Amino acid sequence: MTTVDPEVRTPQQVVGAWLERFNAALDAQDADAAADLFATACFWRDLVALTWNLKTVEGPEGVRDMLTHTLATARPRDFHVTEEPTEADGLVEAWLEFETEGGRGQGHLRLRDGRAWTLLTALRELKGHEEHRGSARPAGAEHGINPERRTWLERRINEAEELGHTTQPEVVIVGGGQGGIALAARLRQLDVPTIVVDRHARPGDQWRGRYKSLCLHDPVWYDHLPYIKFPENWPVFSPKDKIADWLEMYTRVMELNYWSSTEATSARYDEDAGAWEVTVVRDGTALTLRPRQLVLATGMSGKPNQPSFPGQDVFAGEQHHSSAHPGPDAYAGKRVVVVGSNNSAFDICGALYEVGADVTMVQRSSTHIVRSATLMEIGLAALYSEEAVANGVTTERADMIFASLPYRIMHEFQIPLYEQMRERDRDFYDRLERAGFEHDWGDDGSGLFMKYLRRGSGYYIDVGAADLVADGRVKLAHGQVDHLTRDAVVLADGTELPADLVVYATGYGSMNGWAADLISQEVADRVGKVWGLGSDTTKDPGPWEGEQRNMWKPTQVPALWFHGGNLHQSRHYSLYLALQLKARAVGIATPVYGLAEVHHTG
Amino acid sequence: MTTVDPEVRTPQQVVGAWLERFNAALDAQDADAAADLFATACFWRDLVALTWNLKTVEGPEGVRDMLTHTLATARPRDFHVTEEPTEADGLVEAWLEFETEGGRGQGHLRLRDGRAWTLLTALRELKGHEEHRGSARPAGAEHGINPERRTWLERRINEAEELGHTTQPEVVIVGGGQGGIALAARLRQLDVPTIVVDRHARPGDQWRGRYKSLCLHDPVWYDHLPYIKFPENWPVFSPKDKIADWLEMYTRVMELNYWSSTEATSARYDEDAGAWEVTVVRDGTALTLRPRQLVLATGMSGKPNQPSFPGQDVFAGEQHHSSAHPGPDAYAGKRVVVVGSNNSAFDICGALYEVGADVTMVQRSSTHIVRSATLMEIGLAALYSEEAVANGVTTERADMIFASLPYRIMHEFQIPLYEQMRERDRDFYDRLERAGFEHDWGDDGSGLFMKYLRRGSGYYIDVGAADLVADGRVKLAHGQVDHLTRDAVVLADGTELPADLVVYATGYGSMNGWAADLISQEVADRVGKVWGLGSDTTKDPGPWEGEQRNMWKPTQVPALWFHGGNLHQSRHYSLYLALQLKARAVGIATPVYGLAEVHHTG
Repeated sequence: MTTVDPEVRTPQQVVGAWLERFNAALDAQDADAAADLFATACFWRDLVALTWNLKTVEGPEGVRDMLTHTLATARPRDFHVTEEPTEADGLVEAWLEFETEGGRGQGHLRLRDGRAWTLLTALRELKGHEEHRGSARPAGAEHGINPERRTWLERRINEAEELGHTTQPEVVIVGGGQGGIALAARLRQLDVPTIVVDRHARPGDQWRGRYKSLCLHDPVWYDHLPYIKFPENWPVFSPKDKIADWLEMYTRVMELNYWSSTEATSARYDEDAGAWEVTVVRDGTALTLRPRQLVLATGMSGKPNQPSFPGQDVFAGEQHHSSAHPGPDAYAGKRVVVVGSNNSAFDICGALYEVGADVTMVQRSSTHIVRSATLMEIGLAALYSEEAVANGVTTERADMIFASLPYRIMHEFQIPLYEQMRERDRDFYDRLERAGFEHDWGDDGSGLFMKYLRRGSGYYIDVGAADLVADGRVKLAHGQVDHLTRDAVVLADGTELPADLVVYATGYGSMNGWAADLISQEVADRVGKVWGLGSDTTKDPGPWEGEQRNMWKPTQVPALWFHGGNLHQSRHYSLYLALQLKARAVGIATPVYGLAEVHHTG
Repeated sequence: MTTVDPEVRTPQQVVGAWLERFNAALDAQDADAAADLFATACFWRDLVALTWNLKTVEGPEGVRDMLTHTLATARPRDFHVTEEPTEADGLVEAWLEFETEGGRGQGHLRLRDGRAWTLLTALRELKGHEEHRGSARPAGAEHGINPERRTWLERRINEAEELGHTTQPEVVIVGGGQGGIALAARLRQLDVPTIVVDRHARPGDQWRGRYKSLCLHDPVWYDHLPYIKFPENWPVFSPKDKIADWLEMYTRVMELNYWSSTEATSARYDEDAGAWEVTVVRDGTALTLRPRQLVLATGMSGKPNQPSFPGQDVFAGEQHHSSAHPGPDAYAGKRVVVVGSNNSAFDICGALYEVGADVTMVQRSSTHIVRSATLMEIGLAALYSEEAVANGVTTERADMIFASLPYRIMHEFQIPLYEQMRERDRDFYDRLERAGFEHDWGDDGSGLFMKYLRRGSGYYIDVGAADLVADGRVKLAHGQVDHLTRDAVVLADGTELPADLVVYATGYGSMNGWAADLISQEVADRVGKVWGLGSDTTKDPGPWEGEQRNMWKPTQVPALWFHGGNLHQSRHYSLYLALQLKARAVGIATPVYGLAEVHHTG
């Protein structure tokens, strides 16, 4: 085992010495020597740079295995710092750049006692396929005399007319919300011909159609799209119609091939052609697209869980899933039962109460609640806030810092934050409990973000409606729905809740359900469950995956990809998915290390 | 006279000592003591901070006079550096911040031998009326329970429905190109109710309707709008349709009250009401707006000089001003005479040649030509380029550096640059001269930018078409047009140029022509000529003005303002105009120092 030089002292020297040995081991293709530089408890997270996968390996043996399988082809090298390393609490941190055979990457390293505790390696660009931006941006004007000249607009119109008709896209993205749009923007910058299909009439309609009081629960610094940041006058919590307009304009100025009013009705992989056959109905006319890669970006919160209860057919009032709820205006004075007690349920209950509806929330299971201001201050401010930006933590840097924390130990960093929140808002929780509301902090007390990563549900970021439940202005009932009558919802314990409207705020299913609808159940099962970490907590069964299941990375079904998540994830991970797709488009070898096995079908 | 301490050495100390005396003089309201700190040859340029005007004073006596008139009300104070001063060639430079009674400003100082050579003072914001951005941005979501809640969209729709109907705007901007849009965005951020009226159907149509090959001749770093920068994939020279889409997007996401398809047909100032009566026809319906302030932003290149020649009525072909030229596509194989030899003429000749038209350019007077790449490299790169940005010279900083150079001496900095350009492209100019093309470098050899500031005409930034003239592919004729026949243009020397199409690339008139059309000739004459510096060079008669005539500052007609210029000017000067309008909207006293007299009526 390598010994650590006791005379090395400054963070710069500590990192310099480590990198010298690390680079030497990599250059020698000596996986053992490289693994020896890692601590017994260590994590190397690779985003497409070495593994053509999103992959976290653990321990020196994990590092050794990954390097053994990837060194010869990826040839990572020339790791060097980009700014002066820092030290705090015995931990030395460094920002890195490096190269591989085919690309250039960015990295982040944490050393403890001279050995690596965490290493992040993230591919930034493919050599020879760099984005046309900054000093490589297009000229725009074509100087000189050219009788064959076509203007920018003529070329753009021509492309739009041909793509999908006389030429085929390399990639079809089904779903044109923020996820599909961010990915399509990345792909355009990489010159990968792409069509986004979306059933709505206009980009942004995914948001416009939601209940009118909806605002993002995440703050603006967390929500930027790639390439164009929200301006500094943008609201902290974006109202839905502003996000909608932004997405529409972004789609236009980034010149995406976005097919509105287009529904993807079926898809099958043609093995002989090496391409998908995707049938779409565009403005009522069916046509077939033949992309080599198919991305489902229909939303991790896009496929409603439509519950089935006896009596739904005899119920005389109105009933709909929360995703179809139009907002409160038509329900003043009406009796409304909202089934569910997470974000949408609270938002909808609050808005209905405000217009004077008689509202009952049916809590079926425990909910984690944090107050928005508390979450911003304790949970997010260090990375995503005006102060963070002022401290040099741009959104891009924050994304990398966040990515550098391995999922395996992330909860350990989260738990103390939520303990602070609980302390700060103790009165608030006491009142909720006295009202009989069942709340929790996640199975291990790690709170909201871990719940999001593990199961994507089970929480409410309180913007005021929790008080309505706490003081009884919104009535609270408990238990499962047994059946509906002509004018009421009846719970398992016999409680009868009279209703003119029933809203099913019952959440969303795994994204591979979209694959079942579009392709086949067989393909959906081969992909398996989408989302979650394998944490063996509620709704996130093990075994441990180390990364989010099937998101932004190769699945067991070649040429089928899943993209989405919140705006942060859509922004950051769209880069790695775009690079994977670009590499395949231009025939770069992409040997995948550590392709995840499937343990759960949905 | 104050003596300069010989022991003071570092730039920091030099500036520190100067500022200490300067602040002391200001605090004591001692204009003499302050003026003593300026060199014999010196310039203080004030942008609205002290003078409520754009004003450059010269010499200690100019400083003394300005301070004598402004110190008591403006109370400028607390000048301090914001970064370490630098020294080069005996010149010490410093970036400053300061306060006034009502606002906060930014400044730039150059000292030579311990005395001020140039000082720029620019108002940034009004105390108590700061923009809602950064840490002061709106929340977006309104947390808590509020039965009177209106969503962002509902409030926005409500505002749009009321403004101009049941409520009156503070400001009406006539003209919704980049100038009107940039100003309207600033005013919205300052909560000044504003309507932009524009006759086109959509924002950006001002650009969409121009000849199809048109691209901006200025590079992207020079062209940003306030608040939202072009992304880093944006072309260097923006094609017209991309600028159009960007303006449309910007208008939408910045939530401007932009009335498309609206023509302002007349305006008169109602002294009793203290407001304008502006009659507009919106989608065919007339209504009257009553703003307290009226801004003409119809473009310094917006009012075509339509020449009148005998025989225009008998000419059987097509004839139009360059601003109405649709592009070349309909003129393949046709004989075209283009009257004029500046930017539009060259662009149009080049595009017509490319489609196979038989093109003759009629040169009536000498033209200044610089090649685009040469201009970018020698003329602009230090301030507006990818390298400048990489060196920390953001667009905002470049704007301030540029603003810090007094117009009086700007040509001295420009002349050597154009001497370099002449040297670099000597072969190019030799070829042009051999072809008989008359070219010049401005009256004093100061080149393109001074021509732009002085007269806004007389030049071509060559993107290729000059070669067509140099080698005779585009034919060249000289002299004034005498008359037209049924099928030809006849010049003063009798030369007959057969033509199917005549394009009048004859430039644009002074912007006060818009005031004549909209208000009255009497008011236009009271305003006088708009644009120019009073440099006593061709088309820019003296006396010396020191600032651009009537632009972005009070005119001799109260409550009437002119806004426009290129994208750089629209961006930068819109701030100062917006602050002037905001101050008037909220009743802050705005005593104007040095209101310019009128010497020329148009």
